[in-house]
Parts: sequence; structure tokens; C-alpha cells
Amino acid sequence: MTREGGPLTYGKAGVDVSAAARLLDRLSPVIGATRGPEWVDHPSPYAGLIRPETGTMADPLIAATCDGVGTKLLLARGPADFEGLGVDLVAMSVNDLLPLAARPILFLDYLATARLDPERIEAAIRGIAAGCREAGCALLGGETAEMPGMYPDGELEMVGFAVGMVDAELLPDPTTARPGDAVVGLPSTGLHSNGFSLARAALLERGGLDLDHEVRPGMTLGDELLTPTAIYVRPVLDLAATIGFKAAAHVTGGGLLGRAGAMLPTGLEVRIDPAGFTRPPVIDLVATHGGVEEAELAATFNMGLGFLAVIAADDTAAAVELGWRLVGEVTDGKRRVVFGDVAV
Amino acid sequence: MTREGGPLTYGKAGVDVSAAARLLDRLSPVIGATRGPEWVDHPSPYAGLIRPETGTMADPLIAATCDGVGTKLLLARGPADFEGLGVDLVAMSVNDLLPLAARPILFLDYLATARLDPERIEAAIRGIAAGCREAGCALLGGETAEMPGMYPDGELEMVGFAVGMVDAELLPDPTTARPGDAVVGLPSTGLHSNGFSLARAALLERGGLDLDHEVRPGMTLGDELLTPTAIYVRPVLDLAATIGFKAAAHVTGGGLLGRAGAMLPTGLEVRIDPAGFTRPPVIDLVATHGGVEEAELAATFNMGLGFLAVIAADDTAAAVELGWRLVGEVTDGKRRVVFGDVAV
Repeated sequence: MTREGGPLTYGKAGVDVSAAARLLDRLSPVIGATRGPEWVDHPSPYAGLIRPETGTMADPLIAATCDGVGTKLLLARGPADFEGLGVDLVAMSVNDLLPLAARPILFLDYLATARLDPERIEAAIRGIAAGCREAGCALLGGETAEMPGMYPDGELEMVGFAVGMVDAELLPDPTTARPGDAVVGLPSTGLHSNGFSLARAALLERGGLDLDHEVRPGMTLGDELLTPTAIYVRPVLDLAATIGFKAAAHVTGGGLLGRAGAMLPTGLEVRIDPAGFTRPPVIDLVATHGGVEEAELAATFNMGLGFLAVIAADDTAAAVELGWRLVGEVTDGKRRVVFGDVAV
Repeated sequence: MTREGGPLTYGKAGVDVSAAARLLDRLSPVIGATRGPEWVDHPSPYAGLIRPETGTMADPLIAATCDGVGTKLLLARGPADFEGLGVDLVAMSVNDLLPLAARPILFLDYLATARLDPERIEAAIRGIAAGCREAGCALLGGETAEMPGMYPDGELEMVGFAVGMVDAELLPDPTTARPGDAVVGLPSTGLHSNGFSLARAALLERGGLDLDHEVRPGMTLGDELLTPTAIYVRPVLDLAATIGFKAAAHVTGGGLLGRAGAMLPTGLEVRIDPAGFTRPPVIDLVATHGGVEEAELAATFNMGLGFLAVIAADDTAAAVELGWRLVGEVTDGKRRVVFGDVAV
């Protein structure tokens, strides 16, 4: 595509199509390793195919969602950091399928940059493939777009799409929630992929910290912030299959006080006890350096809980056996989350 | 979320979450109009649900793909142009399902910008919804991301994701193609959403043209370039349901000489007669102003054909009845497209 001489070609206009093709060839074994028995091999380059295992489902539904990694991307210090961001990308979408108890079956990625940096793209796709393996879904395909003029040099946008399946008869039914139900949670691995505009403003701008700053022995601020988002597929589907849950929330945009409250019907409130789990130390750093108040922290960050589910109180011990932690209860109230003494 | 006074809040850090929520409330009737009987209403904000009409399918498969609009985005002159770009976004993904004869069932969009411009987002989503109605698929949901620092001011990234369904027994089988088969095509509406880096370089940079330049009476260069991509769902599914096709190609990246050749097995070639259809005048403008050679044009642009299908020659008249045009034939050859006397 790139030719010498006078006429203008696509290569000279800033797009190297063949470099992308070579890279994807190199990654095909990594991508192939995500593909299980549901993946359908076929020669068309335009779309991927899945034969969904609907098994004993009486009424199979398809769930779909998409998400990005947000401004966590702006913290990447080099190509290697994009491997963790690839895991983040998968986590953000597959975890959004789980409040519906939907099992992820496929994932697609869209990566875009001003100029293809094969090291970054390769690291990102390796991370995406690792996330897909953990989530048990096929990396069905994706798009790598080179868009000169659209992105600042060195930035790489990452967008993920996930599709899952659930039997309509097993969809969680929030109207069955009652005061006295237990709220169980799964620990987050840090900030996950939300609130980074605030975290960067507090730590890097206002606090003047550097990403190399050692927040505890052997751990830099950069590594702490870039810890990949937890993928909750296994514990949530285990809970759905054994006990069943009435409602659930992936704790993302809006933090712990955000959309999680909406998982219950009007008239019910989720009360979470801050003493029931560990707050990631990086949240205290944001509070100290940014002068950020508790209510704002809880309305922005996950506070240490990446996923919440509402179950009958009698099922608590069984949920704890599956790795969940009792973190609160359902009470009469305002269809919101109350965290200690803060709420929005 | 935006509070007065000293502490740093998410609002001050550059993200206005509530403005996005208000905008999506305003758009909900437009989005709702895309949702037919397959859409499943449920209260979870994390993912959308579809109950696929598999009808008489013996072996239902799920097809999925994603794409963006590329650097066509950089031509938008104001909010209104994003409505057409929304149609482009749907077209690029749903047309990619069609070579598998998959019927689009759902679409998701991801829009990202440095700072939310409600006019642009609204225009984009109106266009996306119009595209979904034409494609017959539900606009199931989407993500609107405000990412200060990631995008240049005024730019809006648009990414689309489409899911379709097809009966495995009705998948096109390219191994049934034979020399003498007919190649039928559907006209493009212009450049569609590919080759814009070259088009901009040739027309705006090298040619020094302005988007307001009148290319023919009443039509500016900007309007010509921004004409939305055709959505081919109806004619392709009509062809699949009545005649059936052996192989098909959505003419996108790499132009007419690109991936379309790969729709056939090794040993077969697609020969297209340039006299069989109309070349969009904007392609001649690129050739003239950019000094771009014919082979490069055909390896970048669709040349006037947005979709190709291979059918038995005997079925040609029936395909023409459905709105297709006979544009070429299958011959022994190199697994490529030959357009007149050029090929790659």
C-alpha cells in the first residue's frame, strides 16, 4: 500500500493497513485460546459467530452492553500498562452483564489511536484475551482503527462490547426483595476503572504526587492506580446457580452511592456498613491530597466493594461459603445506598 | 454532584454526570421507537435484553461485529452533521453482519468526547436511532463517556456494535461458488465511511478545496462527503430469503479491491465491470486533486458499489427484480477482485 513517488496513496495519508494485519496475525493464537466449543469457525472476515449453549434454558434471552476504561487510560506509562487496561476493558463490560445473571458468551474490542503502535496494541489485546479467558467468553473479533488527527499522539482509546445469555426464568426479580434481606459484596481490587478524573486531579494535580511515588513498600502510585478491575463472573454465576439473588449491582460510575441504589424497588434502601470490608488505601490518599469529603468519595469510587447482591438473610452463610462477604442489609427507605452515614 | 466551596468534586474535575442523564431522558422516546417485539423491558441499568425471534431456525447462531466511522468524523462542521454520522455508525456494523445473512437484532453505541456537547450527542443518537429503525434492530443501549484530556476539544468518537442471528443451515457457503456465477451489487451513496484520510489529504490539503466548495449545483463538497452510508439490510435479507447467495462482501476498508476478494475460495476471482454501475463523482474529484491513480482509488474507495453478492447466473433476473444490479462475474483466478484492468 505504501508506494514511492508522486501520487498520493493511503499509506502516505497516514494509515498503515498492512501493519495492523501483521499484528493481528501474530495475535491469532492468543485470541484463539479464548474460543471454546461455542465458537463457530467460518471464513467471513466481517463478523464472528457463536452457537450459544442454551442447554436446558426454557426462554433464552440475549443481554448486551458496552463500556470503555475511561480516563484510567491516561495513566498508562508505557506499552506494558495496556495489558492491565485490557483486563479492565473486559471487566467493565462482562461485570455489567452479571446483575442480570447473564453468562458472558462473547466479547469484541475497538481500539483506536492516531498512529498504530504495535507494542501497545499487542499488550492491550493480550490483556483483553486474558480477561476473556477469565470471564469464559470468546474474544470474537474487534476493530483496530488508525485515525490520524482524531487522537493525541500516544493515546489509545479502548472500547469493549459483551454479549451474554440468561434464561428468562432465572432473571433476578428485585420485587421479591424485603426489609431484612442481606446485602453481600465482593471486594474490589482498587479503584477499578471509575473516578479517574477525580483521582488524577486530587493526586497528580492538587497533591503534586508522581506516579513513581511509593505508596507502600514496593508499590508505586502508578501501579496501585493501574491495578486491573476484578472480573466477577465466577462468584456471581455461582451465587445465581446455587442460592439465587434478588437483585445485584456492579459498582461503577457514580461509585458506591450511584446506580447500586436503583437495584431495588421504590421504598427499599441498601444500608452498607463501612466496617464490613476493607477500603483500598488509594481512596484515603485521594481524600487527603484532594481534600475530598466522604460523601463525594462514596459517590465516585467503589470504596472497596466492586459488586453487590441482595439475598435472603437465611442464605448468608451459603453466600459466604462462595466467597461473598456480608456487608449490609435492606431496610425500608428511599431507593438509595446509605454508606455509614453518607448518601446522595 | 457539583457543589460550591473548597473540596474537590467530580464536577469540578471536569465530568458532568447529570447532564448526560438529562440528555438520555430526553432521547428515550427516540430510542424507544427502535424497540420492537424482541426487546425485553426490565429495570437493570447495566445491560439490555433481547428475546430473539428464532422462529423456525434449526440451529440459531449469534453473529457480532463492531466498527467506527473513522476519520469521516473529522469533517463534521457542526452538531447537525452528527445525525448523518449516526446513520453511518449503524450502517458500518449492521452491513458487516449481512455477508453471513444474519438479521440484525440489536445495536449499541459508544460515544466519547472531552466535554459533553448535548447538541452533538443528541444529533448523533437521533441518527443512530434512525439507522436502527431502518435496519430493523433495537437500539439496546450505549455509553456516553466524558473524558477530559483524552479527546481534542470538539471531537466526538463514535463506535458501534451490532448483533444478529442466522440459522446455521442458511449460512452462505462460498465453496459452492463456480466460474460463471454472477456478481451482483448494490449502489453506494458516496464514499460511505472509508478512505477519508486519503480523501481529506487529496481534496482539502493537496487540492486546497473548502468544504463549502460547490461540487455541483446546490451540493457542497462537505455535504457530498458526509452523505450517510447506505444500510443494506432489506435487499440483502430479501436476496437471502428468496434466491440465496453463495458469498457476499460489504465493501469497506481496503475499498473494492480489498476484502471483497476473500469472499471466495482460493482459485476463484471476482471480475467487476466498471461500466456496470455509476462511480460517485467525489471519487473523480479525489483522483484529479490528489493525483491518485486508479488502482489506489479502487484499493481505498467503494467505487460506487457498497455491497456484493455471488449468485448462480440463472438467478440474475430475480436478483435484479429485488433491486440488485449485475456488475460482474466469477472466473478462475487468484482469490481477488479485478476491477476493469486494476487489482492488488
